[in-house]
Amino acid sequence: MSVFEAAKKRAMERLRIGGADEEVAGIIERLNSFEGFFTTSSCSGRIALICLPEIGAKREAEFIGKWHRSVTKEEVLEAIKTSEKGEIWLLSQSPILHVACRSLEKAKALLRIAIESGFKYSSIKAISKDNEKVVVEIMSTERMDVPLGKDGVMFCSESHLDFILSKANFMLERVKEKLKRFCYGLKELK
Amino acid sequence: MSVFEAAKKRAMERLRIGGADEEVAGIIERLNSFEGFFTTSSCSGRIALICLPEIGAKREAEFIGKWHRSVTKEEVLEAIKTSEKGEIWLLSQSPILHVACRSLEKAKALLRIAIESGFKYSSIKAISKDNEKVVVEIMSTERMDVPLGKDGVMFCSESHLDFILSKANFMLERVKEKLKRFCYGLKELK
Repeated sequence: MSVFEAAKKRAMERLRIGGADEEVAGIIERLNSFEGFFTTSSCSGRIALICLPEIGAKREAEFIGKWHRSVTKEEVLEAIKTSEKGEIWLLSQSPILHVACRSLEKAKALLRIAIESGFKYSSIKAISKDNEKVVVEIMSTERMDVPLGKDGVMFCSESHLDFILSKANFMLERVKEKLKRFCYGLKELK
Repeated sequence: MSVFEAAKKRAMERLRIGGADEEVAGIIERLNSFEGFFTTSSCSGRIALICLPEIGAKREAEFIGKWHRSVTKEEVLEAIKTSEKGEIWLLSQSPILHVACRSLEKAKALLRIAIESGFKYSSIKAISKDNEKVVVEIMSTERMDVPLGKDGVMFCSESHLDFILSKANFMLERVKEKLKRFCYGLKELK
């Protein structure tokens, strides 16, 4: 068994797709069924509320809310109540998939399909020393990062929050369509 | 002259760095002085106001304000007045550099320096068919995308805008430090 195949075997043992959305679960299953590809992580896109000590210190950020579906203002306001210290940001995050590919050619083929399906921020994130394992990151451009308040004080009015959430919910719908297109496009890899 | 060198020659003829910030100008000059590398585009990071017909249709977005420096609330409100139709978004955008590298090894070395300097969203965006031209994109994680209003109606209060702009201005300062670190790190490429 090659180093790549051994890594795939380990990844498949760790893989749990029970919790994944329908659209992403289909993509993960299809990719892993192909020789020379395996997925290492995935998220179908989400709306998140984080509390962070300062900008950029995202590693220290604490998630105070996380939704892989449309969210209401009431849910967001309820989640914010749990936080007392730090900055509150609302994030709308693109789907993200990391896929290990056994060669540059395979990675380039996957990248082309991802970009053609609308995942325009897709790229190659890492290449192993021997060029035999290439990690492709699949992402779209849909995104919001909005600072809402600080240390328990909300700077964002309710009408503004309504507007922001309508955009965030719309983005989630939009990326679902892209995920379907991408899943369909993957058949070319076979 | 190789295909790569011919492409570098053409890029150098088009290159205008007179308008670039000090930090980015130094990086561009240093990178282009190395054999096997050339820059194809760059931005030192900016705060932008765009007006767009709908999310994702960023190609149709119209810039109504663009600043490569700290910005005041008054400047932003003044710029917004010029727009009547569509959604207004305030963006805080990371520095971005595209660098053509003559081999995968060179691209990987550049990528490592970029990530170690704090440009954690850096990646390989494209590889030519013969693997002899590799485009590296250098970007950091600092970013905001905030919808402010629609069709002439502002949903964002002035106190919230103050808060948002303090974050945007802080991000610009922060990335300047990263640019200096990156410029210094580039000497390893020699």
